[in-house]
Amino acid sequence: MGFRVIAESGQARTGCLSTAHGDVATPAFMPVGTVGTVKALHPDEVRATGARMLIANTYHLWLRPGAELVAELGGLHEFMRWPHAIATDSGGFQAYSLAKRVRVSEQGFEFASHIDGSRRLLTPEESMRVQGLLGSDIALTLDICPPADVPRPALVEAIDRTTRWAERCLAARNPGQMVFGIVQGGTDVELRCQHLDAMSQLPLDGLALGGFSVGEAPQAMYGALEKVVPHMDPLRPRYLMGVGTPADLVRAMAVGVDIFDCVLPTRNARNGQAFVNGGRLTLKNARFRTDPRPLDEACDCPVCSKGFSRAYLRHLYVAGEILGHRLLSLHNIHYYASLMAGARKAISEGQFAHWAHVTQLATAPSGPAEDCV
Amino acid sequence: MGFRVIAESGQARTGCLSTAHGDVATPAFMPVGTVGTVKALHPDEVRATGARMLIANTYHLWLRPGAELVAELGGLHEFMRWPHAIATDSGGFQAYSLAKRVRVSEQGFEFASHIDGSRRLLTPEESMRVQGLLGSDIALTLDICPPADVPRPALVEAIDRTTRWAERCLAARNPGQMVFGIVQGGTDVELRCQHLDAMSQLPLDGLALGGFSVGEAPQAMYGALEKVVPHMDPLRPRYLMGVGTPADLVRAMAVGVDIFDCVLPTRNARNGQAFVNGGRLTLKNARFRTDPRPLDEACDCPVCSKGFSRAYLRHLYVAGEILGHRLLSLHNIHYYASLMAGARKAISEGQFAHWAHVTQLATAPSGPAEDCV
Repeated sequence: MGFRVIAESGQARTGCLSTAHGDVATPAFMPVGTVGTVKALHPDEVRATGARMLIANTYHLWLRPGAELVAELGGLHEFMRWPHAIATDSGGFQAYSLAKRVRVSEQGFEFASHIDGSRRLLTPEESMRVQGLLGSDIALTLDICPPADVPRPALVEAIDRTTRWAERCLAARNPGQMVFGIVQGGTDVELRCQHLDAMSQLPLDGLALGGFSVGEAPQAMYGALEKVVPHMDPLRPRYLMGVGTPADLVRAMAVGVDIFDCVLPTRNARNGQAFVNGGRLTLKNARFRTDPRPLDEACDCPVCSKGFSRAYLRHLYVAGEILGHRLLSLHNIHYYASLMAGARKAISEGQFAHWAHVTQLATAPSGPAEDCV
Repeated sequence: MGFRVIAESGQARTGCLSTAHGDVATPAFMPVGTVGTVKALHPDEVRATGARMLIANTYHLWLRPGAELVAELGGLHEFMRWPHAIATDSGGFQAYSLAKRVRVSEQGFEFASHIDGSRRLLTPEESMRVQGLLGSDIALTLDICPPADVPRPALVEAIDRTTRWAERCLAARNPGQMVFGIVQGGTDVELRCQHLDAMSQLPLDGLALGGFSVGEAPQAMYGALEKVVPHMDPLRPRYLMGVGTPADLVRAMAVGVDIFDCVLPTRNARNGQAFVNGGRLTLKNARFRTDPRPLDEACDCPVCSKGFSRAYLRHLYVAGEILGHRLLSLHNIHYYASLMAGARKAISEGQFAHWAHVTQLATAPSGPAEDCV
């Protein structure tokens, strides 16, 4: 288990993260499998896109079906039939945003389950215990993730507590499981660097940037990343949590981020949106009603190769058919995996900047969809 | 294009239906692809179960996305990327049961679309025109399908009109498309045989039994089938529409039915129910919470072979995850396809009665699910 950088191109880097469930080439995008399934997709389909690590959610699996149950059935890899690497988020973000009647103290999060209202206590130790039962390859430390617009004193408090919780997580770490710590600080570069320094002194296997893409302007995130990421320990993997659009990924890889996760490819699929070279297609748009072309003529994913037309995919979306959701999810996850594969190749050839320029994503706005035909 | 019986075992028969899109071995079960997709499944998955013919719905596709649009995109086979045979129901059943403000006259069904309320007129000629645009291999004639409990005079009227409409459909038939006529008459054997005689005199390529499984007791259907099916022209394929449970299929094959369709395998999957050897599993049942076994240890479908456990499938169902719906649909369609493959093999070996006995379905009740472990 460990991480090594293989090549660099500017600040971008390609490497290999070795886990108990195989190697993961970086930069890597982790499809999100919140409750033990990448939404609408079969694990073999996810694998076939090239993805070798996904992220599941401690909070969700803890509440349902329960971590003990998953452990009894052999752990999450066995449960969901995914033999490759799995990371698990610590549950902090969800306890903060999803749960009801949340009380945060130094001990942890006390809250009511959003599923059955039962009273729960998520401490750093409990988060690690649950992640141990799930058997993920990478555990995340429990953190406080404040919204983008909180005042500075609240950010400072969040940071300090997150550091203390990271220490408690490390004290409770599970054998054979890597632990990544989460750095907070919003878009305040000084606070970010301060927290980064504190977290970097802990024996964490990787450093994650939390609290981005939580409502701030894309340019504010880009600005912070440009300044913060180059200060991150180059020997440890750098993980930008919950980000983002294809443009976000290219921007972040350019400054040296190694790992990503985001619900966008699957969530946007559910809303009838496909990522394609040059932009996005919003299939409810009437212009696709009779469009016989595949989503992306340059795409070699199973959906485009099979010849499913935009018109058919639009029909499935409008009719609310699951196959539409499936096919768009598959295409989108393939798009993200291909983007990462392209980046890795470009970096190993020392051509990242050129590649990023060719993708037209290096300077693209992160913002809302723009249809292209 | 045509049909030939290859072997018989008792009254059961196996044969080959040749269509413009390949041969279909009978007895055959057609998965239902109402709006141009077998719900939750990819056409390659349907194909891999062994199915070589599915049935789509004229009424639904006519209203959305529109038959002209499907034709413009190359017809239904091309549109949904299914290169094998397709039958299309005439739309009569849906115009009767789904549409609003329906007026039935000798001309046809006048009704309001259940999608946008638009006023529509479905005549025998329009049904054939739409089925021609869809380009199905088998068109069904427009029929009147009364509920199980209508009085005899209404049944008689339905029968007579259905015959006249079949004649109009034949007059409007499309080149290269087989036409099957629908025989009505409820569970009234005399009326059924009378209508069968009338329809048999028409140059129809196959004869379908409509109006079963519309609310009558299973034993009433079995009783009628035993008496009616043996009177059907042995040279033409016999299609029992909208039926049914595995037990229904075995009973109907035993008296000589060749073709079936039913939403049960996909609809029950949506409700968390799996068909297995010996019965059904209702996954919401708490007993499956920690069950590590596949749905059916004797099943070689991709779901059972992959090792997805009952516990995992139950979790997906409870969490409302699409993958659960997908996997149960795939397993169930595979179950039906395997049942038919087993029947065909048994018939060709002259062992149908023995095979039916071994399946424990020959005398099983058709009724509600019984859990088995």
